[in-house]
Amino acid sequence: MEDLYPSRKNSKPEIIERKDPVIHSDLSKDKGPLSDEQINFYQKNGFLQIENFFSPDEVSEMQKGIFDLQESSREVDSEKVIREPESDEIRSIFHVHNDDQYFKKVTNDQRILDIVQYLLGSDVYIHQSRINYKPGFTGKEFDWHSDFETWHVEDGMPRMRAVSLSIALSDNYIFNGPLMLIPGSQNYFVSCIGETPEENYKESLKKQKLGVPDHNSLRWLAENGGGISVPTGKAGAITLFESNTMHGSNGNITPYSRNNLFMVFNSVENQLVKPFSGGKERPEFIAVREGAKRLSLR
Amino acid sequence: MEDLYPSRKNSKPEIIERKDPVIHSDLSKDKGPLSDEQINFYQKNGFLQIENFFSPDEVSEMQKGIFDLQESSREVDSEKVIREPESDEIRSIFHVHNDDQYFKKVTNDQRILDIVQYLLGSDVYIHQSRINYKPGFTGKEFDWHSDFETWHVEDGMPRMRAVSLSIALSDNYIFNGPLMLIPGSQNYFVSCIGETPEENYKESLKKQKLGVPDHNSLRWLAENGGGISVPTGKAGAITLFESNTMHGSNGNITPYSRNNLFMVFNSVENQLVKPFSGGKERPEFIAVREGAKRLSLR
Repeated sequence: MEDLYPSRKNSKPEIIERKDPVIHSDLSKDKGPLSDEQINFYQKNGFLQIENFFSPDEVSEMQKGIFDLQESSREVDSEKVIREPESDEIRSIFHVHNDDQYFKKVTNDQRILDIVQYLLGSDVYIHQSRINYKPGFTGKEFDWHSDFETWHVEDGMPRMRAVSLSIALSDNYIFNGPLMLIPGSQNYFVSCIGETPEENYKESLKKQKLGVPDHNSLRWLAENGGGISVPTGKAGAITLFESNTMHGSNGNITPYSRNNLFMVFNSVENQLVKPFSGGKERPEFIAVREGAKRLSLR
Repeated sequence: MEDLYPSRKNSKPEIIERKDPVIHSDLSKDKGPLSDEQINFYQKNGFLQIENFFSPDEVSEMQKGIFDLQESSREVDSEKVIREPESDEIRSIFHVHNDDQYFKKVTNDQRILDIVQYLLGSDVYIHQSRINYKPGFTGKEFDWHSDFETWHVEDGMPRMRAVSLSIALSDNYIFNGPLMLIPGSQNYFVSCIGETPEENYKESLKKQKLGVPDHNSLRWLAENGGGISVPTGKAGAITLFESNTMHGSNGNITPYSRNNLFMVFNSVENQLVKPFSGGKERPEFIAVREGAKRLSLR
């Protein structure tokens, strides 16, 4: 299969124009569950926040759910449980849409599925899910990256036809390391330098190293796009963002933790193929691909 | 001299009530250069931002000044020039009010002196000055701290009668690691645990370690004060904050650098004495004290 978005293959970075639509439904026909305003915002900026998506009761239940799982995972030695580099504190738990009955239900919420099926113009499946715990005082930054770049090179996701969803499970302030996005960046693929060493995926969850866009490209995106957006708001809000939208977050020295449930929906018409790095398949990739078949929603 | 604000002497942290006024002028008489609203804000919150304090021309001149000095200091090996731990990039240049003719003039601006003399209720001198360069992409966080705690323990500043002034020389956004303050925290001294090893001051400019308030005290301050304030705004704004106001900043992964000129004014009636750590005097302390005599402004 032709590699429309080559990355980590050259010694110089490059900016490549997007070759896929941002919204995959026929905009002239299908109205979907979003308002015109929401559709236009997502199309233009590559992300969309919807406040009060979940009720306070639902938020309480999910908050209890993530801390129960953190507690019961404390002694678990698994590559799905990611800990802080400098302590044993759990930073992320992966694959909760499959491994945990409660989160399987949450990630299959029909209100969410209606939106992502509309954005992707097809049936969808969950490519990845995780709970992120960003503790107060010691939360680390997460460098700028396009998720698609990683999934394309390391997982073999051929086209830009996936959407990420973050459910805020604590209040997001401007100062506790909230998600930052570069509006408009979904329209440009930043081809990164270098190659993917085997087993990079383990390290990259702790501290992104490969697939890091260069400073000039980031500056260009921010200057030619809309600068930097920081959606903040109460727990229960959701933020949808396109697979190629450039995002990251600063650290968090405040006392206020920042937790969220994160999942990625991919179109069933965008099934994974051999990774575009030319490297070996990674174990998780195989698991995800199997999960994909099993979890395909219709 | 009695130590009214003991710190780094015990194994448990403690919160001690402030024993000094926040504004040292007689509020019933002296009106000073600030408005009632500004005075009340500073009294209550322990800081005050004034936008457009410097004109665009003055800002351009100062911006040129800091980069000229950074350039001419590139090869300088001095403990007044602080570099990033992981690179040779200059992060701060100290003592510019004394070493540099241009910055001597800037730090003695009469509009600034009028304000700080009012807040401190006396003549003042410059206890410390520095230029901070917080580069884009790699700017590091600065942990929460009270400046007074350091100056008291390490420099021998007896009372809370000093004020810090930051001149913004680049635009401060919510996302490029701006100064964060805990409103109301000026009224409580957080006594930290541990002791000051000799020569701590060299390390502490890179990565604060000693004199770091404990998490419970920080949480208490934020909950009992006004949470966290983040003054943002255009270059040319100034932020005044009381010596004991708890502050810090997150890192900065954005392309937008954050530079400022920072100086500390102390009351001439609050002259430094033997450091309250009981430790040795540090070389810089002696220099600062001599500078204090020389620079006393009237």
